[in-house]
Amino acid sequence: MLNPASDAFIAHLRTLLPPQAFRDATDAVLSEPRGRWRGQGHPIAPATTTEVATLVAACAAARVGIVPFGGGTGLVGGQIMPADESNGPLPVILQLDRLRTIRSLHPTENVLIAEAGVTLRAVQDAAEQANRLFPLSLASEGTATIGGVLATNAGGVHVLRHGNARAQCLGIEAVTADGQVWHGLTRLRKDNAGYDLRDLIIGSEGTLAIITAAALALAPRPAQTGSALLAVPSPQAALDLLALARDIAGDAVTAFELIHKQGLAFLSETGLAVPPPLDPLPDWMVLIDLALPPGPTPETLLEQIAEQALARDLATDGTIAQSQSQRAAFWHIRETIPEANRRIGAVSSHDISLPLSEIPAFIATAPAALARIDTFRINCFGHLGDGNLHYNVFPAPGRTRADHDHQRSAVKTAIHDLVHAAGGSVAAEHGLGRLKVTDLETYADPVKLALMRKVKQALDPQGILNPGAVLRAP
Amino acid sequence: MLNPASDAFIAHLRTLLPPQAFRDATDAVLSEPRGRWRGQGHPIAPATTTEVATLVAACAAARVGIVPFGGGTGLVGGQIMPADESNGPLPVILQLDRLRTIRSLHPTENVLIAEAGVTLRAVQDAAEQANRLFPLSLASEGTATIGGVLATNAGGVHVLRHGNARAQCLGIEAVTADGQVWHGLTRLRKDNAGYDLRDLIIGSEGTLAIITAAALALAPRPAQTGSALLAVPSPQAALDLLALARDIAGDAVTAFELIHKQGLAFLSETGLAVPPPLDPLPDWMVLIDLALPPGPTPETLLEQIAEQALARDLATDGTIAQSQSQRAAFWHIRETIPEANRRIGAVSSHDISLPLSEIPAFIATAPAALARIDTFRINCFGHLGDGNLHYNVFPAPGRTRADHDHQRSAVKTAIHDLVHAAGGSVAAEHGLGRLKVTDLETYADPVKLALMRKVKQALDPQGILNPGAVLRAP
Repeated sequence: MLNPASDAFIAHLRTLLPPQAFRDATDAVLSEPRGRWRGQGHPIAPATTTEVATLVAACAAARVGIVPFGGGTGLVGGQIMPADESNGPLPVILQLDRLRTIRSLHPTENVLIAEAGVTLRAVQDAAEQANRLFPLSLASEGTATIGGVLATNAGGVHVLRHGNARAQCLGIEAVTADGQVWHGLTRLRKDNAGYDLRDLIIGSEGTLAIITAAALALAPRPAQTGSALLAVPSPQAALDLLALARDIAGDAVTAFELIHKQGLAFLSETGLAVPPPLDPLPDWMVLIDLALPPGPTPETLLEQIAEQALARDLATDGTIAQSQSQRAAFWHIRETIPEANRRIGAVSSHDISLPLSEIPAFIATAPAALARIDTFRINCFGHLGDGNLHYNVFPAPGRTRADHDHQRSAVKTAIHDLVHAAGGSVAAEHGLGRLKVTDLETYADPVKLALMRKVKQALDPQGILNPGAVLRAP
Repeated sequence: MLNPASDAFIAHLRTLLPPQAFRDATDAVLSEPRGRWRGQGHPIAPATTTEVATLVAACAAARVGIVPFGGGTGLVGGQIMPADESNGPLPVILQLDRLRTIRSLHPTENVLIAEAGVTLRAVQDAAEQANRLFPLSLASEGTATIGGVLATNAGGVHVLRHGNARAQCLGIEAVTADGQVWHGLTRLRKDNAGYDLRDLIIGSEGTLAIITAAALALAPRPAQTGSALLAVPSPQAALDLLALARDIAGDAVTAFELIHKQGLAFLSETGLAVPPPLDPLPDWMVLIDLALPPGPTPETLLEQIAEQALARDLATDGTIAQSQSQRAAFWHIRETIPEANRRIGAVSSHDISLPLSEIPAFIATAPAALARIDTFRINCFGHLGDGNLHYNVFPAPGRTRADHDHQRSAVKTAIHDLVHAAGGSVAAEHGLGRLKVTDLETYADPVKLALMRKVKQALDPQGILNPGAVLRAP
């Protein structure tokens, strides 16, 4: 069993770390974006990897739990430990924002080395200044940190072409559960010298080691980019349109986002109104991004895609961005939907992925499963090209999420059962955190779950790293 | 300690598995491509995942070692257990070639599910028939199997654009050390439900679990492909040319191979002569591949690259393939060099990777380090775009590798020390096998090595899986 981070323990830490490392427990570190949970813990913010190692070693010696905290934008409670028995006693909150140095940039190698507390946007900006691209891109990028996006293996809108966070990381520096530093900041594209502990630690949500820095892979900046917003008659047509777009433009297709008109309705309803991008507004739209080397313009290819899609009834209307500002307007719609969702207040949000060909059937059948519970509004949108949908369930107009509190669990089960039966995942890009610990126990392959427990036991035998996240604290 | 696979144990296995699973120990399964080692063991070839699980469970109960065997093309002895104390007693050789079904193909999802014993070429062919691309490509692809390329996280010529084997795999089915089956054949592009055991097992060279099938990611077939062979004045110029090519063609650059004229000399010397591709033959050449969506032809872009490279003295001569047969001829040169190397007989081969910017200095300084040992011929070639060189050291004309047997260890140490000092890896794409167990102990970060041992202990506590490979048998 773990011990609480007592006043005596904090006093002991004060003998090991400089005074600047000690912070008050403010709202910012005890709350989370969806307002589900209230955290607990003593925030401590080391400024260097050595200080992180010192802190972890002291916690290991005293058997005190550690909750790592990056930008605080996680959606599944991985960064927040509520005061309840499933998580264990009062922890230290390890804030990593003071590790905010971009240690080096190697433009000829397409590599950038950043500390855990650097924001995603700061990395994107540094890459851009070197005429490179760091392709990871998501709505919270101004706040989310490199440590956080790696700990959760974040996805975003360019996974289709560039993969998730794991795929964009060459090496990590990490502090182990006994307070040692693994110096794994390789700039190598190929290294088969031993087990892939990098990929094991990435996505482990702070439960196997603390990532303190990362060597990130940059990409060439595309010479040309373009966008189109196309109305599609159905999710199946959207999938066929994806295939058509790739037949025409190959892997120049860097994003393929599905949007439902419910999302645009929510924008108006929450004061985030945008000019209607298509008139009449269709039920379903897709937002397509192309990135190309010099040559034919994206507009040419997008016209070709749109023309063939219209001819084959895969699209019914559409607009091709004629300027970067029009393109930004398209993406503004997509990126503002999550904020509108927050303002409406979901009964239950589902970050699911499905085999691509299972998506139309899922979208067709899920509403009936929900209707058996109550009347809801559904906002279904997301990264169709990755098979990753955000399938979010909202109260009918005039009702609030509180009216449905007693049904949340039934809603979640209805959706997750359908997803699991279709070979999907109930934790596609946001991770498990504490929100989906039970889901993992319910849906994971039992052999995999047993292997995960063995790995956790091997690398963190005392269970001090992010207790209660991913795997239930023993 | 392990027990030998005694006659009594084999007799016991015959009660569990059908007679077709039992094979004689032929040369094919007891030898390896470089002729360094002679293996030992009882070959057993299950036909299904269930039979593999039965076999592993029986070995676990009897504490008998298992050496997994795919196509047998590995270059570091991972598939071969010589009879010596460092490996342990007589093992079972688990041949996976009877698991040779392509279980399904999902063209709209760009997914193919193949069993471990399917050859890489069979997967490429099946993908091509569906108008898709399986980009993993390497010289031994006609023999190498999916199980083997995943167990070793194989690289090849398209890593620059598509990543190594790990990056091209969505999910695996694997048998654990206690004979259970992990059903992880997901067709999902995004799945953050738990630790990345897939990437942990991929590249573990059969020491953590036995891969029996894999869900592989296919790519769109590029509309256009083209090649150029350019003479470059130096390795530094080759690197600058890589940057130029990517500035012009973005990530349409799918391969960027460095070739030294020693490689072409070896082709003539070993009866594999090709028409000289450039006249005069330069010291250094690069072979560039482009893959493009419809639009400007690769030839147009390659001409642009060549023109600017000539103007900036990054290239001194060159040819752009004007037909697919000329392109095939360029690649034939590149792909035949390993065979010529085998015929010459290397004193020592080094599969190394370096941070890109460290490569020119390494190529400049390594010959002096070798000259302090003896007179050698060096054939330096490889995947420059990945920072991955095959730096192979050969006897001077008139001498044989046997003349240098006593110096092999000194040669290896000289090269590996230089690579390690420059932040490189001594096992870039071929893995560790048994050849580089000591290298791992010498060069790996000690914290990483300790973590690897903990993972091995957790997942294979008896040490029955590929004893002596990757980590020294205890």
